[in-house]
Amino acid sequence: MPSGRIIQIYEVACRQFAQRGFDGVSMRDIAAECGISKATLYHYFPDKDSILRPLAMGATKSIYLHVARHDDVTLPAVDRLRRFVVETATFFEAFRWAWIAGSTAFWSDPEARARKERIAWRDRYEQLLRDILQAGIEAGELRSTDVKIAGRLVLGTINWMPRWYNPAGPLKAPEIAGQFCDMLLDGLRAEAPKKATRRNVKAAD
Amino acid sequence: MPSGRIIQIYEVACRQFAQRGFDGVSMRDIAAECGISKATLYHYFPDKDSILRPLAMGATKSIYLHVARHDDVTLPAVDRLRRFVVETATFFEAFRWAWIAGSTAFWSDPEARARKERIAWRDRYEQLLRDILQAGIEAGELRSTDVKIAGRLVLGTINWMPRWYNPAGPLKAPEIAGQFCDMLLDGLRAEAPKKATRRNVKAAD
Repeated sequence: MPSGRIIQIYEVACRQFAQRGFDGVSMRDIAAECGISKATLYHYFPDKDSILRPLAMGATKSIYLHVARHDDVTLPAVDRLRRFVVETATFFEAFRWAWIAGSTAFWSDPEARARKERIAWRDRYEQLLRDILQAGIEAGELRSTDVKIAGRLVLGTINWMPRWYNPAGPLKAPEIAGQFCDMLLDGLRAEAPKKATRRNVKAAD
Repeated sequence: MPSGRIIQIYEVACRQFAQRGFDGVSMRDIAAECGISKATLYHYFPDKDSILRPLAMGATKSIYLHVARHDDVTLPAVDRLRRFVVETATFFEAFRWAWIAGSTAFWSDPEARARKERIAWRDRYEQLLRDILQAGIEAGELRSTDVKIAGRLVLGTINWMPRWYNPAGPLKAPEIAGQFCDMLLDGLRAEAPKKATRRNVKAAD
């Protein structure tokens, strides 16, 4: 099997899925951009699903393996949190199209394009973050908060990035993620210049 | 025009688009769930686009008008920020299907289903948030940060909510948004136990 051809097909399909959505892309479109006939494309892949499936699965599984490999339970939780956030962005930057294509497929998927197995990998990824937050709370490094809610907060900031990130912009994804991490840890509120008193500005809730 | 019928069609289409994606829904599906013939449906709407367009446009425009109506420039920026975040969640909770259907259409839309005009409304919404953050920095209420990055941070947390929010869960969307706001303002990091690092809010002057 000419693996160069396979990789080319994955790359082209991935970018097209990400840009136009799974349903907006035909086998003809993929073949045309690869410079091959539809017959040749069908020789490798019986349908679009068979192209998307490994891409989507791969992205979800790989992101977990990537952050897990960079995690180190002997580090302070704040450092582990930073690694989690920054390495997620690093992965996203390196495999941007696969990520977007996979994410689009994941959420718009009417049936179950390997969705169950992907959810298992996604759960491991999210659980690792919650474990880090829990460790930080127990060690007194992080405030005592609802770990699920705090996890959603952190995930939202990095998961939303593919929607607006501009690779040609001044900051690379991991740099933005690093700034996010600073803001998430220390908050947006200004610290009091001198006094240690805190005025409560919370709306009645 | 029997407006009850129109509203029913919008509601059914909206939920179907949100659950299965725009391309996963046919005019036949919409007609079937409404309990009307395809001919009757086509009497009101020539195609799916004509159903989605006002829904998607409406959601984006309405969210801006909703948060803008609740904004009050005479309040401290931290209170304005809280209103922005909580009212976004309130809107989302009330118009959940329209939001998801519109968002799905927005991002997977290959052509320009009224995309340009929607972007203009979306820009107003995001600019209001940046204005609030900028006002907070100038008043010394918020740390001096990159307003664009901080804005992305805040938007990510609330824009990601439709992906995981469970209406049957213990917390309503505005409550979760309120907790997000606390975390965003004061950070996840624990305060030093002895040192006077508690945060304060400087009055604007």
